[in-house]
Amino acid sequence: MGNDLLARRARLLGPNVPTFYARPVEIVRGQGSSLFDADGQRYLDAYNNVAHCGHCHPRIVKAICEQAATLNTHTRYLHEGILDYAEALLGKFGFDGQLLMTCTGSEANDVALRMAQAVTGKRGFIATDNTYHGNTTAVAHLSTRRPPIGGWPDHIRRVPAPDSLAPLGGSLEAQPEAFAANVAQAIAELEESGHGFAGFMLCPIFANEGMPGIAPGFLDQTVEVIRRAGGLILCDEVQPGFGRIGSHFWGHEWLGFTPDVVTMGKPMGNGHPVAGLVAKPDVMAAFREAFGYFNTFGGNPVSVAAAMETLRVIEDEGLQENAAQVGDYLLQRLRELSHPLIAEARGLGFFLGIELAQDGEPASEAAGRIVEAMRERHVLMGRVGRAQHILKIRPPMVFNRADADEMLEKLAQSFEELPA
Amino acid sequence: MGNDLLARRARLLGPNVPTFYARPVEIVRGQGSSLFDADGQRYLDAYNNVAHCGHCHPRIVKAICEQAATLNTHTRYLHEGILDYAEALLGKFGFDGQLLMTCTGSEANDVALRMAQAVTGKRGFIATDNTYHGNTTAVAHLSTRRPPIGGWPDHIRRVPAPDSLAPLGGSLEAQPEAFAANVAQAIAELEESGHGFAGFMLCPIFANEGMPGIAPGFLDQTVEVIRRAGGLILCDEVQPGFGRIGSHFWGHEWLGFTPDVVTMGKPMGNGHPVAGLVAKPDVMAAFREAFGYFNTFGGNPVSVAAAMETLRVIEDEGLQENAAQVGDYLLQRLRELSHPLIAEARGLGFFLGIELAQDGEPASEAAGRIVEAMRERHVLMGRVGRAQHILKIRPPMVFNRADADEMLEKLAQSFEELPA
Repeated sequence: MGNDLLARRARLLGPNVPTFYARPVEIVRGQGSSLFDADGQRYLDAYNNVAHCGHCHPRIVKAICEQAATLNTHTRYLHEGILDYAEALLGKFGFDGQLLMTCTGSEANDVALRMAQAVTGKRGFIATDNTYHGNTTAVAHLSTRRPPIGGWPDHIRRVPAPDSLAPLGGSLEAQPEAFAANVAQAIAELEESGHGFAGFMLCPIFANEGMPGIAPGFLDQTVEVIRRAGGLILCDEVQPGFGRIGSHFWGHEWLGFTPDVVTMGKPMGNGHPVAGLVAKPDVMAAFREAFGYFNTFGGNPVSVAAAMETLRVIEDEGLQENAAQVGDYLLQRLRELSHPLIAEARGLGFFLGIELAQDGEPASEAAGRIVEAMRERHVLMGRVGRAQHILKIRPPMVFNRADADEMLEKLAQSFEELPA
Repeated sequence: MGNDLLARRARLLGPNVPTFYARPVEIVRGQGSSLFDADGQRYLDAYNNVAHCGHCHPRIVKAICEQAATLNTHTRYLHEGILDYAEALLGKFGFDGQLLMTCTGSEANDVALRMAQAVTGKRGFIATDNTYHGNTTAVAHLSTRRPPIGGWPDHIRRVPAPDSLAPLGGSLEAQPEAFAANVAQAIAELEESGHGFAGFMLCPIFANEGMPGIAPGFLDQTVEVIRRAGGLILCDEVQPGFGRIGSHFWGHEWLGFTPDVVTMGKPMGNGHPVAGLVAKPDVMAAFREAFGYFNTFGGNPVSVAAAMETLRVIEDEGLQENAAQVGDYLLQRLRELSHPLIAEARGLGFFLGIELAQDGEPASEAAGRIVEAMRERHVLMGRVGRAQHILKIRPPMVFNRADADEMLEKLAQSFEELPA
């Protein structure tokens, strides 16, 4: 079965199309926090942040169906749907904003970069050296995963990501100031190069960096440096947003700063391809003045219906509170896990990580073995971090206490199998 | 009503968000070739190429609903849906290809550019000087609509678009060779600049250029020039594809050449945000080797279900044949329209244009007046071309003879009102 599918896949889609796991899983059905394979076997989903309200949430499916049967067209005609959604979404922000809708988080980040360019008239950007913000050409330049053809562009500068095992400045206490100093230096280099400094794009919980050693206030000095230089703070909320971190609806609220642009994606429509960004009105106006942006599918009534119902379900079902409560429980129990390779368990709500290390060095291979062992036990999770040495637990927001217990039990078993 | 909506829109979405028409239309419902406003008034849709099989086609709505209720997740798990679709879609091509799925045509074109870079190891691109291929940063650089912040990038070179009123080389006969000569010169310039030549991105019916004075074989000399230089031909089928031109399923088949990459978008899922590209296997392999591309929503089972049912409906309902027959009828009747400003009516299937000119100069204002007059008569159409002087008729593929007659009658009335 799996081998036939893999061969057919390689023939029709080409080589190197990414899959999860040494033995990839064929999934045919989803419900809540469960996924089912072709043989009807259940997998516990502790990974997917797209099916935010649970796989195939009936209310969201119904909203999509009803609107798809009524109207699906572009925003060059007027429609109340996008306005009602904008009103509801903007109400979730602590600052005045306006909404632009796209289809993917990558598209949203691609627009955010141009917003900063429109406001500042400059081209240069800063990102951390261990990040990922999406897959368009311009956004992929922020990532260090693979060099573009022709080499890295000169208008992107990278600052060292915060780290837990080896904190910047030598200690967790010194890390915020050291981070800000590196940002100041990158700004100076960009100004000197002639590109100038347009903005800093970051995830406010440094999710892809593995949430290393950060706490509220971490960015305070950095924000001051950026403001003083006239640059914009582009806040990628694709991972922390929509209540995932439990204590707050957005990551930037938790960290304690006000961004100029907030981008969002994956969970926004519970799997429907909808994404967008919220920008301060002067930023939006500058962008709309400088660029003639139009996105054919962006903000269509069906995508908006999916997004609106997702927002309502998060509220009606108390999913942010669930992430806070079950997430807290999970984190406590993860901290009780005992194994010599576990350096730290940490996290916020339903974004949790277990950093594995040996003699202070990332234990990447062991992290890979745990992920595979969990897959064989039918629990789906992933890993993250500079060396892919941090186990990543990021379940749908409906993950309940029983799900947590099942995962914890199997995780303990998987660690027991692991050589010390 | 409209004014309140516009004010609310400006408040929530910001200024300069594009709309159609001096008096924008609020659309609340769609069915087949009809759109309905909030007062229940019907508009004939002669513009939307996204609702390819007609607005809210019940079979496609059903396919979306059923799959959305079953599973919607990413392609890192295996799923037969994308493979079945790939097989069906690739069967529509006259060459061996492999499929990569995205959410928008812009994303597909953004990937296509990187495919050419991966194959050639070079960075330079050519496009016509009156084109549009999408809205990501990298793809928007191909368009001349607005300059990027920091100025036009040096690795993009533009060649003069073909033209009807003022053909390249002085005549329609000389135009193909003159076009190819300009491409050869642009390639030489790119090589000299150090960027090198990666590829030429074009629409095979030059849709945004207004389909000016081209016929099968038009690109033969250009293709030879490109091949000799080792560059790729990136064929943007977002507008001509999926049978719209009537005589062929793809624009490149009509023009008579084999591209290296074909991109597609708008009509692919009848409005669902799905897009993709088909590339020759060696091109796909080079891309997958050079770039670690993953698109979260791309190729998800719901998007694939929408695309699959769209493909089936095109075949089952004979929509390509309908475009050929009703399109032919429309073109004949458009050619009988008599007005001093009509320079030429031309087109293929359901992509038709009426070029307006006065003393050999584009009659842009008159074209605008016709579009507005038609909107007041409840027929939705647009315009295109270097000076927005070409009326664009591009209806859903279910547009029937009665729709055509209604449009023709109202078009005749609108021209009668126009000062000569």
